[in-house]
Amino acid sequence: MSWSQDDFQHMRRAIELARRGRFSTRPNPAVGCVIVRDGRVVGEGFHPKAGEPHAEVFALRAAGELARGATAYVTLEPCSHYGRTPPCAEALIRAGVGRVVAAMVDPNPQVAGRGLSMLREAGIEVASGLLEGDALAINPGFIKRMSEGRPFIRIKLAASVDGRTALANGHSKWITGPQARQDVQRMRLAHGAIITGADSVLADDPAMNVRPEQLPASLTLPDTWSQPLRVVVDGRARLAPPLRLTAIESPVLLASTRAYGCDWPDWVESWQGPSRCDKLDLHALVAELAERQINTVMVEAGASLAGAFLSAGLWDELILYQAPKMMGSDGRGVVNLPELAEMTQVPEFQFKDVRRVGADLRLTLVRAES
Amino acid sequence: MSWSQDDFQHMRRAIELARRGRFSTRPNPAVGCVIVRDGRVVGEGFHPKAGEPHAEVFALRAAGELARGATAYVTLEPCSHYGRTPPCAEALIRAGVGRVVAAMVDPNPQVAGRGLSMLREAGIEVASGLLEGDALAINPGFIKRMSEGRPFIRIKLAASVDGRTALANGHSKWITGPQARQDVQRMRLAHGAIITGADSVLADDPAMNVRPEQLPASLTLPDTWSQPLRVVVDGRARLAPPLRLTAIESPVLLASTRAYGCDWPDWVESWQGPSRCDKLDLHALVAELAERQINTVMVEAGASLAGAFLSAGLWDELILYQAPKMMGSDGRGVVNLPELAEMTQVPEFQFKDVRRVGADLRLTLVRAES
Repeated sequence: MSWSQDDFQHMRRAIELARRGRFSTRPNPAVGCVIVRDGRVVGEGFHPKAGEPHAEVFALRAAGELARGATAYVTLEPCSHYGRTPPCAEALIRAGVGRVVAAMVDPNPQVAGRGLSMLREAGIEVASGLLEGDALAINPGFIKRMSEGRPFIRIKLAASVDGRTALANGHSKWITGPQARQDVQRMRLAHGAIITGADSVLADDPAMNVRPEQLPASLTLPDTWSQPLRVVVDGRARLAPPLRLTAIESPVLLASTRAYGCDWPDWVESWQGPSRCDKLDLHALVAELAERQINTVMVEAGASLAGAFLSAGLWDELILYQAPKMMGSDGRGVVNLPELAEMTQVPEFQFKDVRRVGADLRLTLVRAES
Repeated sequence: MSWSQDDFQHMRRAIELARRGRFSTRPNPAVGCVIVRDGRVVGEGFHPKAGEPHAEVFALRAAGELARGATAYVTLEPCSHYGRTPPCAEALIRAGVGRVVAAMVDPNPQVAGRGLSMLREAGIEVASGLLEGDALAINPGFIKRMSEGRPFIRIKLAASVDGRTALANGHSKWITGPQARQDVQRMRLAHGAIITGADSVLADDPAMNVRPEQLPASLTLPDTWSQPLRVVVDGRARLAPPLRLTAIESPVLLASTRAYGCDWPDWVESWQGPSRCDKLDLHALVAELAERQINTVMVEAGASLAGAFLSAGLWDELILYQAPKMMGSDGRGVVNLPELAEMTQVPEFQFKDVRRVGADLRLTLVRAES
């Protein structure tokens, strides 16, 4: 397939539109659509929020009669099934578009090429794969959940350059600077759930929520944003009110192998999961979150729980904020792993991204290519 | 002082020339010189090696009679004193140059402005400070030694991103990849001395030398290069032959508070220094190295000795190679520091440079600006 300059330009615009929904469409993917007739953009749209119309519908509405014979650029294959809204493939056919260019095929097994087939069968010219990498990057979580049945998992860590999170006596405020902490707020906003551990909750009584006033000033928060689900791994059900975490009226999931002996507010749900090696089975927790249509999870936990996700292979990206400090070998380590005997057993990653965030660094690591 | 485009261009060229000597002029600074008459370069030179002529002499020789009335661009103030060679200020005066532009004043207390004064008194137009920052960066060690009486000290560390240098059982080969190890060879070449500790020598039997075949292929090694002095901090004089370090015929300094009971080859010198808190006094060692005209020192040591230099304030740059690996909290730490009680006591740095070296990162940290 060869693409024209115009094709690239319009798809780039569609991707830009899609990104406007990235904090608010969950559990749906963020999608953008541009309708072009005779080289002129006649309609634009993006999916703003689950339950509201899809990107194609907004773009078709804007285009009206001009959609007839036009080209529709969509960042994701148009849906073919009746969900909360009728299928977009049908709407495009009804509007009489002449050509549909999709950046990628929908990984949702309910769609998976059927949308494009419907269009093709209706005599519409269909192409896909334009700027696919960019389109994949908008919805890593939705794609992961659809294709592998689990959310996309980021493990967020923060340490000094010598890998310490606290002094030997536990003092740790603050390792990283204000800009890195703002960046964490931005990251929370982009995730469907934040997981932490009972130890962290008992030690620091964190709120774990998104605090809009602490977001980077450059970020425009859409009205439709929502708080991530706050999840606490509390295997032995040690938590009890009052906690800052549960005092904030926004969904919390307490994940334990046991039942709680106390009452929680309405917005706090407890979930009892199986145990594995005497701990809550993290695979089961992650499957439960996928079941609840959580696309992206950020693990913001201490060295033991972060290490447990890492060791279980339940991760896709490691985000490590590094402060330009040295705390020395007596300080607390950033991640606990099973003791290794040989260097060949050491988990290897690769740097996907390295950037400065204020006075700190943010390293993004992914699995090493084998 | 305002500089013309031509001034910048010629001084940049002089700096480029100076850098050619950077692996071979020690204990002298690397200096470059460009002589320009009527907009045309008529002579170029750089100082290749201690004992050989200075940059100005080579440039004046090339210029010959054309030096008369010309402008000389030098990266360091011309010398005013008789060392191994006669003063360059005198040579410039004799050649009849009309203007001298120096990037920086010589921090050597024997010169310190006297070279420029001599020129000025001879009726030559004199200016300094053009591209001073670049000129300072060529000779950090010479400048440090001249201005503060101690070498410029880099502490080189290598660890996983979670700050570990070895597994709990001591296994450590290799943390970083081949390009980072090449980069360390390049770094060794650029230093007058490499310091390590007796523990590292006893554990790993390292050679600590520059191995030209392991240098990056992009680096052109001048004929005049020399091995750095290899220094071992061996407070209790525990070392004894045979050692790989002392088997290589190139200078070694064994620094101890005690006398050795064994014989060493001719190229191995032992130096007995004072002790402080039951350890060899590192301040005394560093002063001894300055006395021996060592401009730059790289500390390549284990967590204890690296931490001791850091805690003593005997450092100017930290070079931390980070491998994209996690070794877990049981792994050995990269730097031992005295136990701290408060976060405000944690040493703070700033990132001066962050870059990828093969699959690894190289972080350069300097003191935080207060």
